[in-house]
Amino acid sequence: MTSAASVLITGASGMLGRRLTARVLAAQTLGGLPVGSVVAADVVEPTQKMSDERLTYRVGDVSDPAFVRSIVDPSVTSVFHLAGVVSGAAEQDFDLGQRVNLDGMRHLLEILRGLGSAPRLVFTSSLAVYGGELPDRLTDGQRLTPQTSYGMQKAIGEFFVAEYTRRGWIDGRSLRLPTIAIRPGAANAAASSFVSAVVREPLAGRAYACPVDESVRSPILSPGRCVKNLIHAHELPSDAWGWDRSVTLPSLDATVAELVAAVREIGGDEVAGLVTYQPDPFIAKIVAGWPQAFDTRRATELGFTADASVADIVAAHVEDVRAGW
Amino acid sequence: MTSAASVLITGASGMLGRRLTARVLAAQTLGGLPVGSVVAADVVEPTQKMSDERLTYRVGDVSDPAFVRSIVDPSVTSVFHLAGVVSGAAEQDFDLGQRVNLDGMRHLLEILRGLGSAPRLVFTSSLAVYGGELPDRLTDGQRLTPQTSYGMQKAIGEFFVAEYTRRGWIDGRSLRLPTIAIRPGAANAAASSFVSAVVREPLAGRAYACPVDESVRSPILSPGRCVKNLIHAHELPSDAWGWDRSVTLPSLDATVAELVAAVREIGGDEVAGLVTYQPDPFIAKIVAGWPQAFDTRRATELGFTADASVADIVAAHVEDVRAGW
Repeated sequence: MTSAASVLITGASGMLGRRLTARVLAAQTLGGLPVGSVVAADVVEPTQKMSDERLTYRVGDVSDPAFVRSIVDPSVTSVFHLAGVVSGAAEQDFDLGQRVNLDGMRHLLEILRGLGSAPRLVFTSSLAVYGGELPDRLTDGQRLTPQTSYGMQKAIGEFFVAEYTRRGWIDGRSLRLPTIAIRPGAANAAASSFVSAVVREPLAGRAYACPVDESVRSPILSPGRCVKNLIHAHELPSDAWGWDRSVTLPSLDATVAELVAAVREIGGDEVAGLVTYQPDPFIAKIVAGWPQAFDTRRATELGFTADASVADIVAAHVEDVRAGW
Repeated sequence: MTSAASVLITGASGMLGRRLTARVLAAQTLGGLPVGSVVAADVVEPTQKMSDERLTYRVGDVSDPAFVRSIVDPSVTSVFHLAGVVSGAAEQDFDLGQRVNLDGMRHLLEILRGLGSAPRLVFTSSLAVYGGELPDRLTDGQRLTPQTSYGMQKAIGEFFVAEYTRRGWIDGRSLRLPTIAIRPGAANAAASSFVSAVVREPLAGRAYACPVDESVRSPILSPGRCVKNLIHAHELPSDAWGWDRSVTLPSLDATVAELVAAVREIGGDEVAGLVTYQPDPFIAKIVAGWPQAFDTRRATELGFTADASVADIVAAHVEDVRAGW
């Protein structure tokens, strides 16, 4: 019998993956069991490795079935599938996105199916599954109409999670993540990168040319709160989810102007003045396709939570920087 | 320059494929061009071959990329992608459905992408993309929540068509087909097979044990009307579709009892009495997941049409049998 949780985290070197790894290692239990082992897999080494005898780092590509097979412990109880090519990159290289975001996920699901033990799987989907002409307020019943390759791949990922769950091969849960901000480190290839950069760059004393204008609105969730929600998604019993294995996470709606105002509160006019505006049509076009108002009733009923305010999100970032995230 | 339509029909030996092939050959023009050539591809030979110098039959499996490459004429202008493993079969053999319905479609789309000419593609999706807890009346904005492997594969097919179209690699159009009835020939592995059989079998003098009770309701479209709609989907200009490349076809809502009543009108009590009821839990479970009322406003606005009455549908079947379909 299973007496300890055996955990696999893909995309473990990323911003969310690193925090999630730390939180899983710090957890008393996961799914009611003490955490016995954690495999932290990513296509790149983490910038900083954690030291814990239960933790193993693995480097490889989820689009390689042999690599995926090598990271799945036959006794795995819990999988957090965060690995993926981000939105801007998947848009610029369609084949890469298909290979990693679609085929990589399918390799993983097939290997889990083969185990016969139906492990829990938490999959990070995205609000990028929505696009085109949308109603003003989106519910969880809204049709997924992605207008980017990334969004299309995430939508299909949700279908796979639902189907493998229905078949009894995994116990899956898909979370549609809003924009996660404030991200530490350098900007990545995600089209939403500006949301973090307008806060992070000036606070670090660097000038930042924002590619969208200050009225642009984004649904935001802090990295720390997001990781809490990932764990919560795992901990919920299967019957709390029922047949519908996807949910849009709660978020806070903020404009670029509100984020810059929060920067001004902390750093003053000179720091806020480091942000200038240089519209980029490529980014603007992707962002314009994203919806902005969500009815996340189901997530709230299931116990998922958003951050309390824009000021809180910016303050959480200042703490993150201090803590070395 | 393209001076004639070059047409590929997959699933061409099936009920819809054979009729579609005949109708394409009979058409004055397709997409404004005279029909120069038609490739009719299927995994099985058609029961009856049509004779037309423009027509080539090809037998092979769309899950084999080499076969797909061999049936795509580099100058192809029009593709009707009907090939697929049907619902009951895809439910009983998951891997087969994934290979044909998902991978086969991807092979085809990749080859079309490689042509660089963005041919028109009409894809037959299905109402099986809907399932689970649904509102009483479904619009085209309803989230796709398949509860069968077949429905999941069709839903993903729609996403592929939308994405390859957005990328400018094809000019795609997906139609969500209701139950097509009355089907000629033997029952197939589709879970909806009973809808046709309750009419076809007694009218042919054969007893039929219906696997669902007579109150079960289905959205029905006759094969002839369906093929008209397939051609109409092809003929619509790209900008009539806009960004949204999927539509639910109009249909007529009929109970098993209404279908049997129409049989009684034509054949009398003795013929209608050939139908008995022997509920099958496997079929009943699949069918129970299908929704029953549709707001098909968009289809109607785009010029798609349903049959006028249950009597018309049964009469069309009697004519079909006479015509040898």
